[in-house]
Amino acid sequence: MSKPPPALQDLAAPEGVCYGCGCAHPSGLHIKSHWDADGKHVVCTYRPPDQFTGWPGLVYGGFIAMLVDCHSNWTAMAHHYRAEGREPGTLPRIDCVTGQLNLSYRKPTPMGVELTLKARVEGEVGRKSRVICEVWAADVLTVTADSIFVRVDAAQLSSQAASRVETTA
Amino acid sequence: MSKPPPALQDLAAPEGVCYGCGCAHPSGLHIKSHWDADGKHVVCTYRPPDQFTGWPGLVYGGFIAMLVDCHSNWTAMAHHYRAEGREPGTLPRIDCVTGQLNLSYRKPTPMGVELTLKARVEGEVGRKSRVICEVWAADVLTVTADSIFVRVDAAQLSSQAASRVETTA
Repeated sequence: MSKPPPALQDLAAPEGVCYGCGCAHPSGLHIKSHWDADGKHVVCTYRPPDQFTGWPGLVYGGFIAMLVDCHSNWTAMAHHYRAEGREPGTLPRIDCVTGQLNLSYRKPTPMGVELTLKARVEGEVGRKSRVICEVWAADVLTVTADSIFVRVDAAQLSSQAASRVETTA
Repeated sequence: MSKPPPALQDLAAPEGVCYGCGCAHPSGLHIKSHWDADGKHVVCTYRPPDQFTGWPGLVYGGFIAMLVDCHSNWTAMAHHYRAEGREPGTLPRIDCVTGQLNLSYRKPTPMGVELTLKARVEGEVGRKSRVICEVWAADVLTVTADSIFVRVDAAQLSSQAASRVETTA
Protein backbone atom coordinates (compact mmCIF):
# COMPACT_ATOMS: atom_id res chain seq x y z
CA MET A 1 0.00 0.00 0.00
CA SER A 2 1.38 3.41 -0.89
CA LYS A 3 1.76 6.08 1.76
CA PRO A 4 -0.96 8.77 1.53
CA PRO A 5 0.28 12.16 0.32
CA PRO A 6 0.96 14.76 3.04
CA ALA A 7 -2.01 16.89 4.02
CA LEU A 8 -2.12 20.67 3.63
CA GLN A 9 -1.68 20.98 7.41
CA ASP A 10 1.47 18.82 7.39
CA LEU A 11 2.95 20.81 4.53
CA ALA A 12 2.10 24.35 5.53
CA ALA A 13 1.83 24.40 9.34
CA PRO A 14 3.51 21.39 10.98
CA GLU A 15 3.94 23.43 14.18
CA GLY A 16 0.23 24.40 14.38
CA VAL A 17 -1.40 24.23 17.82
CA CYS A 18 -5.08 24.63 16.86
CA TYR A 19 -7.35 22.12 18.66
CA GLY A 20 -9.08 21.28 15.38
CA CYS A 21 -6.27 21.11 12.83
CA GLY A 22 -2.95 21.71 14.57
CA CYS A 23 -0.38 19.02 13.78
CA ALA A 24 1.44 19.81 17.03
CA HIS A 25 -1.61 19.88 19.34
CA PRO A 26 -1.11 17.11 21.90
CA SER A 27 -4.76 16.02 22.11
CA GLY A 28 -6.61 17.80 19.30
CA LEU A 29 -8.62 16.49 16.38
CA HIS A 30 -5.74 16.62 13.85
CA ILE A 31 -8.01 16.94 10.85
CA LYS A 32 -6.28 16.51 7.49
CA SER A 33 -7.30 18.31 4.29
CA HIS A 34 -6.25 17.40 0.75
CA TRP A 35 -6.89 18.78 -2.71
CA ASP A 36 -9.46 16.61 -4.47
CA ALA A 37 -8.53 15.01 -7.78
CA ASP A 38 -10.99 17.41 -9.46
CA GLY A 39 -8.63 20.32 -8.68
CA LYS A 40 -11.57 22.35 -7.42
CA HIS A 41 -12.56 20.92 -4.07
CA VAL A 42 -10.61 20.27 -0.89
CA VAL A 43 -11.67 17.16 1.03
CA CYS A 44 -11.36 15.81 4.57
CA THR A 45 -12.58 12.54 6.04
CA TYR A 46 -13.16 12.07 9.75
CA ARG A 47 -14.87 9.51 11.96
CA PRO A 48 -16.25 11.31 15.04
CA PRO A 49 -14.93 9.85 18.29
CA ASP A 50 -17.66 8.43 20.59
CA GLN A 51 -17.41 11.30 23.06
CA PHE A 52 -18.68 13.83 20.50
CA THR A 53 -22.30 12.77 20.66
CA GLY A 54 -25.17 15.26 20.82
CA TRP A 55 -28.33 13.21 21.08
CA PRO A 56 -27.96 9.46 21.61
CA GLY A 57 -26.77 8.04 18.28
CA LEU A 58 -26.21 11.45 16.68
CA VAL A 59 -23.07 13.52 16.15
CA TYR A 60 -22.95 16.76 18.17
CA GLY A 61 -23.59 19.75 15.92
CA GLY A 62 -20.89 21.75 17.68
CA PHE A 63 -18.38 19.06 16.77
CA ILE A 64 -19.40 19.33 13.12
CA ALA A 65 -18.90 23.09 13.41
CA MET A 66 -15.28 22.46 14.49
CA LEU A 67 -14.60 20.20 11.50
CA VAL A 68 -16.21 22.66 9.08
CA ASP A 69 -14.40 25.65 10.59
CA CYS A 70 -10.89 24.21 10.21
CA HIS A 71 -11.46 22.42 6.93
CA SER A 72 -13.07 25.46 5.30
CA ASN A 73 -10.21 27.65 6.48
CA TRP A 74 -7.68 25.24 4.98
CA THR A 75 -9.69 25.31 1.77
CA ALA A 76 -9.33 29.09 1.67
CA MET A 77 -5.59 28.91 2.40
CA ALA A 78 -5.05 26.21 -0.26
CA HIS A 79 -6.71 28.48 -2.80
CA HIS A 80 -4.49 31.40 -1.75
CA TYR A 81 -1.32 29.34 -2.28
CA ARG A 82 -2.58 28.26 -5.68
CA ALA A 83 -3.55 31.82 -6.64
CA GLU A 84 0.05 32.84 -5.89
CA GLY A 85 1.39 29.96 -7.98
CA ARG A 86 3.20 28.25 -5.14
CA GLU A 87 3.02 25.12 -3.03
CA PRO A 88 1.79 24.97 0.60
CA GLY A 89 4.93 24.94 2.75
CA THR A 90 6.71 27.61 0.74
CA LEU A 91 7.36 30.93 2.46
CA PRO A 92 5.97 33.35 3.43
CA ARG A 93 3.28 31.30 5.12
CA ILE A 94 -0.32 32.14 4.31
CA ASP A 95 -2.72 32.44 7.24
CA CYS A 96 -6.47 32.99 7.33
CA VAL A 97 -8.92 33.28 10.22
CA THR A 98 -12.66 32.70 10.38
CA GLY A 99 -14.73 35.81 9.70
CA GLN A 100 -18.13 34.15 9.56
CA LEU A 101 -19.14 30.55 10.08
CA ASN A 102 -22.64 29.78 8.81
CA LEU A 103 -23.95 26.22 9.08
CA SER A 104 -27.28 24.70 8.04
CA TYR A 105 -28.10 21.42 9.76
CA ARG A 106 -30.27 19.67 7.19
CA LYS A 107 -30.52 16.18 8.62
CA PRO A 108 -29.34 14.43 11.77
CA THR A 109 -25.75 13.14 11.39
CA PRO A 110 -25.47 9.55 12.67
CA MET A 111 -22.60 8.36 14.85
CA GLY A 112 -20.59 5.38 13.63
CA VAL A 113 -20.16 6.64 10.07
CA GLU A 114 -17.10 8.27 8.51
CA LEU A 115 -17.88 11.85 7.51
CA THR A 116 -16.59 13.45 4.32
CA LEU A 117 -16.23 17.22 4.08
CA LYS A 118 -16.04 18.66 0.60
CA ALA A 119 -15.30 22.37 0.26
CA ARG A 120 -14.48 24.95 -2.39
CA VAL A 121 -14.01 28.67 -2.75
CA GLU A 122 -16.98 30.44 -4.35
CA GLY A 123 -16.00 33.56 -6.31
CA GLU A 124 -12.74 35.44 -5.94
CA VAL A 125 -9.86 34.39 -3.73
CA GLY A 126 -9.27 37.68 -1.90
CA ARG A 127 -8.60 39.16 1.51
CA LYS A 128 -12.03 37.77 2.36
CA SER A 129 -12.87 34.49 0.64
CA ARG A 130 -16.19 32.67 0.67
CA VAL A 131 -16.02 28.93 1.24
CA ILE A 132 -18.89 26.48 0.64
CA CYS A 133 -18.57 23.21 2.55
CA GLU A 134 -20.73 20.08 2.46
CA VAL A 135 -20.72 17.40 5.15
CA TRP A 136 -21.66 13.90 4.00
CA ALA A 137 -22.40 10.95 6.27
CA ALA A 138 -21.73 8.17 3.77
CA ASP A 139 -24.10 9.17 0.92
CA VAL A 140 -26.33 11.49 2.96
CA LEU A 141 -25.73 15.25 2.86
CA THR A 142 -26.40 16.31 6.46
CA VAL A 143 -24.86 19.79 6.82
CA THR A 144 -23.97 22.62 4.45
CA ALA A 145 -21.95 25.72 5.28
CA ASP A 146 -21.31 29.07 3.62
CA SER A 147 -18.56 30.94 5.45
CA ILE A 148 -16.00 33.73 5.17
CA PHE A 149 -12.27 33.45 5.87
CA VAL A 150 -10.04 36.49 6.18
CA ARG A 151 -6.37 36.56 5.30
CA VAL A 152 -4.28 37.91 8.17
CA ASP A 153 -0.79 38.63 9.37
CA ALA A 154 -0.44 35.96 12.07
CA ALA A 155 2.25 37.83 14.03
CA GLN A 156 0.00 40.86 14.29
CA LEU A 157 -2.95 38.73 15.41
CA SER A 158 -1.00 37.20 18.29
CA SER A 159 0.35 40.54 19.48
CA GLN A 160 -3.18 41.98 19.46
CA ALA A 161 -4.37 39.07 21.57
CA ALA A 162 -1.50 39.46 24.02
CA SER A 163 -2.26 43.13 24.54
CA ARG A 164 -5.93 42.31 25.03
CA VAL A 165 -5.17 39.69 27.67
CA GLU A 166 -3.09 42.25 29.56
CA THR A 167 -5.92 44.77 29.60
CA THR A 168 -8.83 42.43 30.31
CA ALA A 169 -7.51 39.54 32.41
CA MET B 1 -22.02 31.67 50.39
CA SER B 2 -25.38 30.61 49.02
CA LYS B 3 -25.62 27.72 46.60
CA PRO B 4 -26.14 28.89 42.99
CA PRO B 5 -29.60 28.13 41.61
CA PRO B 6 -29.85 25.02 39.39
CA ALA B 7 -29.17 25.59 35.70
CA LEU B 8 -31.71 24.97 32.95
CA GLN B 9 -29.77 21.83 32.00
CA ASP B 10 -29.92 20.44 35.55
CA LEU B 11 -33.65 21.11 35.79
CA ALA B 12 -34.84 19.99 32.37
CA ALA B 13 -32.37 17.33 31.16
CA PRO B 14 -30.27 15.86 33.98
CA GLU B 15 -29.77 12.70 31.88
CA GLY B 16 -28.48 14.62 28.80
CA VAL B 17 -25.46 13.13 27.01
CA CYS B 18 -24.55 16.03 24.69
CA TYR B 19 -20.81 16.78 24.66
CA GLY B 20 -21.49 20.48 25.07
CA CYS B 21 -24.30 20.65 27.62
CA GLY B 22 -25.18 17.14 28.77
CA CYS B 23 -25.22 16.84 32.58
CA ALA B 24 -24.55 13.09 32.24
CA HIS B 25 -21.71 13.28 29.68
CA PRO B 26 -18.63 11.79 31.37
CA SER B 27 -16.07 14.20 29.85
CA GLY B 28 -18.06 16.97 28.12
CA LEU B 29 -18.10 20.71 28.63
CA HIS B 30 -21.14 20.72 30.99
CA ILE B 31 -22.10 24.28 30.14
CA LYS B 32 -24.76 25.80 32.42
CA SER B 33 -27.37 28.31 31.30
CA HIS B 34 -29.50 30.51 33.57
CA TRP B 35 -32.19 33.11 33.07
CA ASP B 36 -30.71 36.57 33.55
CA ALA B 37 -32.21 38.86 36.20
CA ASP B 38 -33.58 41.00 33.35
CA GLY B 39 -36.05 38.21 32.45
CA LYS B 40 -35.13 38.59 28.80
CA HIS B 41 -31.68 37.09 28.34
CA VAL B 42 -30.22 33.70 29.18
CA VAL B 43 -26.58 33.74 30.29
CA CYS B 44 -23.71 31.29 30.55
CA THR B 45 -20.18 31.83 31.82
CA TYR B 46 -17.30 29.57 30.82
CA ARG B 47 -13.52 29.67 31.07
CA PRO B 48 -12.08 27.80 28.06
CA PRO B 49 -9.77 24.96 29.10
CA ASP B 50 -6.18 25.33 27.85
CA GLN B 51 -6.55 22.62 25.22
CA PHE B 52 -9.10 24.64 23.24
CA THR B 53 -6.62 27.05 21.74
CA GLY B 54 -6.70 28.07 18.08
CA TRP B 55 -3.75 30.38 17.57
CA PRO B 56 -1.28 30.73 20.44
CA GLY B 57 -3.02 32.81 23.11
CA LEU B 58 -6.40 32.77 21.36
CA VAL B 59 -9.52 30.66 21.90
CA TYR B 60 -10.35 28.25 19.06
CA GLY B 61 -13.31 29.53 17.04
CA GLY B 62 -14.74 26.03 16.78
CA PHE B 63 -14.81 25.84 20.57
CA ILE B 64 -16.77 29.09 20.71
CA ALA B 65 -19.17 27.57 18.16
CA MET B 66 -19.83 24.69 20.59
CA LEU B 67 -20.59 27.07 23.47
CA VAL B 68 -22.87 29.21 21.30
CA ASP B 69 -24.65 26.19 19.81
CA CYS B 70 -25.66 24.66 23.16
CA HIS B 71 -26.32 27.91 24.99
CA SER B 72 -28.45 29.32 22.17
CA ASN B 73 -30.45 26.09 22.03
CA TRP B 74 -31.08 26.25 25.78
CA THR B 75 -32.16 29.86 25.33
CA ALA B 76 -34.75 28.71 22.79
CA MET B 77 -35.96 25.90 25.06
CA ALA B 78 -36.18 28.23 28.09
CA HIS B 79 -38.39 30.55 26.06
CA HIS B 80 -40.60 27.63 25.00
CA TYR B 81 -41.16 26.59 28.63
CA ARG B 82 -42.01 30.16 29.55
CA ALA B 83 -44.35 30.54 26.58
CA GLU B 84 -46.23 27.48 27.86
CA GLY B 85 -46.38 28.94 31.36
CA ARG B 86 -44.40 26.15 33.00
CA GLU B 87 -41.05 25.51 34.64
CA PRO B 88 -38.11 23.66 33.03
CA GLY B 89 -38.26 20.13 34.41
CA THR B 90 -42.04 19.80 34.10
CA LEU B 91 -43.34 17.26 31.59
CA PRO B 92 -43.60 16.80 28.70
CA ARG B 93 -39.96 17.77 28.09
CA ILE B 94 -39.29 20.38 25.44
CA ASP B 95 -36.52 19.62 22.94
CA CYS B 96 -35.03 21.75 20.19
CA VAL B 97 -32.25 21.08 17.69
CA THR B 98 -30.01 23.44 15.74
CA GLY B 99 -31.40 24.42 12.35
CA GLN B 100 -28.83 27.08 11.49
CA LEU B 101 -25.77 28.26 13.38
CA ASN B 102 -24.41 31.58 12.12
CA LEU B 103 -21.41 33.11 13.85
CA SER B 104 -19.52 36.35 13.19
CA TYR B 105 -16.03 36.46 14.64
CA ARG B 106 -15.49 40.17 15.27
CA LYS B 107 -12.31 40.17 17.33
CA PRO B 108 -9.82 37.56 18.52
CA THR B 109 -10.97 35.94 21.79
CA PRO B 110 -8.07 35.75 24.28
CA MET B 111 -7.35 32.65 26.37
CA GLY B 112 -7.19 33.08 30.13
CA VAL B 113 -10.39 35.11 30.42
CA GLU B 114 -13.83 33.94 31.53
CA LEU B 115 -16.31 34.21 28.67
CA THR B 116 -19.91 35.36 29.12
CA LEU B 117 -22.57 34.32 26.61
CA LYS B 118 -25.74 36.41 26.62
CA ALA B 119 -28.60 35.21 24.41
CA ARG B 120 -32.24 36.01 23.73
CA VAL B 121 -35.00 35.00 21.35
CA GLU B 122 -35.68 37.57 18.64
CA GLY B 123 -39.31 37.62 17.46
CA GLU B 124 -41.81 34.82 18.02
CA VAL B 125 -41.14 31.65 19.99
CA GLY B 126 -42.35 29.11 17.45
CA ARG B 127 -41.48 25.79 15.86
CA LYS B 128 -38.46 27.65 14.52
CA SER B 129 -37.06 30.29 16.89
CA ARG B 130 -34.35 32.81 16.16
CA VAL B 131 -31.73 33.26 18.87
CA ILE B 132 -29.22 36.12 19.05
CA CYS B 133 -26.15 35.35 21.15
CA GLU B 134 -23.22 37.58 22.16
CA VAL B 135 -19.89 36.29 23.42
CA TRP B 136 -17.98 38.64 25.73
CA ALA B 137 -14.37 38.18 26.85
CA ALA B 138 -14.52 40.33 29.98
CA ASP B 139 -15.78 43.65 28.53
CA VAL B 140 -14.89 42.94 24.89
CA LEU B 141 -17.58 41.66 22.51
CA THR B 142 -15.70 39.15 20.34
CA VAL B 143 -18.37 37.00 18.64
CA THR B 144 -22.03 37.48 17.73
CA ALA B 145 -24.40 34.80 16.49
CA ASP B 146 -27.83 34.75 14.85
CA SER B 147 -29.16 31.21 14.70
CA ILE B 148 -32.30 29.10 14.31
CA PHE B 149 -33.46 26.33 16.64
CA VAL B 150 -36.22 23.93 15.70
CA ARG B 151 -38.57 22.27 18.16
CA VAL B 152 -38.62 18.50 17.70
CA ASP B 153 -39.97 15.24 19.01
CA ALA B 154 -36.79 13.74 20.48
CA ALA B 155 -38.00 10.13 20.24
CA GLN B 156 -38.67 10.56 16.52
CA LEU B 157 -35.25 12.14 15.99
CA SER B 158 -33.43 9.19 17.54
CA SER B 159 -35.42 6.62 15.58
CA GLN B 160 -34.65 8.48 12.34
CA ALA B 161 -30.97 8.42 13.19
CA ALA B 162 -31.05 4.72 14.02
CA SER B 163 -32.65 3.87 10.69
CA ARG B 164 -30.07 6.01 8.90
CA VAL B 165 -27.18 4.22 10.60
CA GLU B 166 -28.62 0.89 9.46
CA THR B 167 -28.81 1.99 5.85
CA THR B 168 -25.52 3.88 5.56
CA ALA B 169 -23.01 2.29 7.96
